[in-house]
Amino acid sequence: MTLESPLVYETRHRLSYYECDATGHPSLSMLISMAVQVSEDHGNLLGLDTAVVQSYGGGWVITSYEGSFAKQQPVNGEEIILGTRAIANNRFFALREFWIQSTDHKIEYAHLTGLFVYMNLKTRHLMSIPSAIIEPYHGPEKKRLPRLAKACELKDVKFKNDYHVRFFDIDSNRHVNNARYFDWMQDPLGAEFLSSHRLKHMTMRYEKEVRYGQTITSEISSPYYNENGELATDHRIVFDGQLAAASTMIWYE
Amino acid sequence: MTLESPLVYETRHRLSYYECDATGHPSLSMLISMAVQVSEDHGNLLGLDTAVVQSYGGGWVITSYEGSFAKQQPVNGEEIILGTRAIANNRFFALREFWIQSTDHKIEYAHLTGLFVYMNLKTRHLMSIPSAIIEPYHGPEKKRLPRLAKACELKDVKFKNDYHVRFFDIDSNRHVNNARYFDWMQDPLGAEFLSSHRLKHMTMRYEKEVRYGQTITSEISSPYYNENGELATDHRIVFDGQLAAASTMIWYE
Repeated sequence: MTLESPLVYETRHRLSYYECDATGHPSLSMLISMAVQVSEDHGNLLGLDTAVVQSYGGGWVITSYEGSFAKQQPVNGEEIILGTRAIANNRFFALREFWIQSTDHKIEYAHLTGLFVYMNLKTRHLMSIPSAIIEPYHGPEKKRLPRLAKACELKDVKFKNDYHVRFFDIDSNRHVNNARYFDWMQDPLGAEFLSSHRLKHMTMRYEKEVRYGQTITSEISSPYYNENGELATDHRIVFDGQLAAASTMIWYE
Repeated sequence: MTLESPLVYETRHRLSYYECDATGHPSLSMLISMAVQVSEDHGNLLGLDTAVVQSYGGGWVITSYEGSFAKQQPVNGEEIILGTRAIANNRFFALREFWIQSTDHKIEYAHLTGLFVYMNLKTRHLMSIPSAIIEPYHGPEKKRLPRLAKACELKDVKFKNDYHVRFFDIDSNRHVNNARYFDWMQDPLGAEFLSSHRLKHMTMRYEKEVRYGQTITSEISSPYYNENGELATDHRIVFDGQLAAASTMIWYE
């Protein structure tokens, strides 16, 4: 762990075989899990563990992600750098960035931005962020935060699959691990597509929390070429006719 | 990493939030994944990585596990010791033990024994273990290996659920991660049972390999008291009328 400035937190992590998928590289859900882990570690270092955060009546909830990924990805057994810092925050929103790099800092495998709110976890009502849990990050206060790219709406449903939310989808924070949504979102694409394409960019917006025992449906558009000539797929998770999450993914071919 | 004798390999690992379930402790499938990881690390250290092992025409395949678990389990964020050594081997079988301990070695959270064979991965035919890939472990050669406890046969089916084998169930070894069977085996017990009981002992026997795209059924007996007065459940994974795996689990109440 190095601490270059009050803003920056970095740690090293060695990729285990169970964090990598059939391609030999970490799955998107594992990259997201590592980002969540490094932000928890950052919080713990600043004395802001879950108990302290929740002592103000709420908890951090992710609302959206945007991520860019290098064509070269780390491999099973490789040591990588996980880093994070607060970018900006206002009364209701906190923006945080994450990076996953080679240990020589020469390759940035993934760069993620996440937008967080502070929410009463029982009523799901937004609360203003208590200054005691945001000031230690020294993120600049800004009236307007940069916006993350939006997911495109599905125009057709080419791939579709139902997923039952399992006990082991709940993590030690006692909520469905938000990273699992990416497994549900990508799995219907099938082994052939997922083995022959690598993720280049993604946007993700969480709309409704999925809970243990529910059956959700993962729907995916036909792959299409976007205005930049890139191969893209639109994704959504629905349950009971409600949108739980939406994503657009852009792929290296 | 400490190397106490040619036989023993130990490494340290810090538990991430995504390796722990709703109880705040690592799930059985994660404990098994960590055991597999430490045995891969041990192999790599001895120059026996997957490519070398497979250069003799086959690969290591786990046939069964037996495990004992302390009532006290490690928690999210805790650093633990993962250890392994070869216990014994003969022409066709290799027995390996694993331990998961507190860093002061005072608590043994889990002790596992695994029986491995060397198999042609295409024909699924057993091969004799090439001496070049077993001798470096310095495990004693024995005609008869100690037997692992057997799973009891299901007398009734109280809990039952179907699981579709997903792309992300395949790990970087390009097979369904054997640890996933434990998620499928435990999930039908439900959150109430799994949150209020902790695993004490398990036996597991793999019979048939489960593959991507298959739908498997996980069946569990009614909980019962065994001959030692312990709460037990019998588990099996079936597909196409064939037994894929069988387990008996004993629980702390």
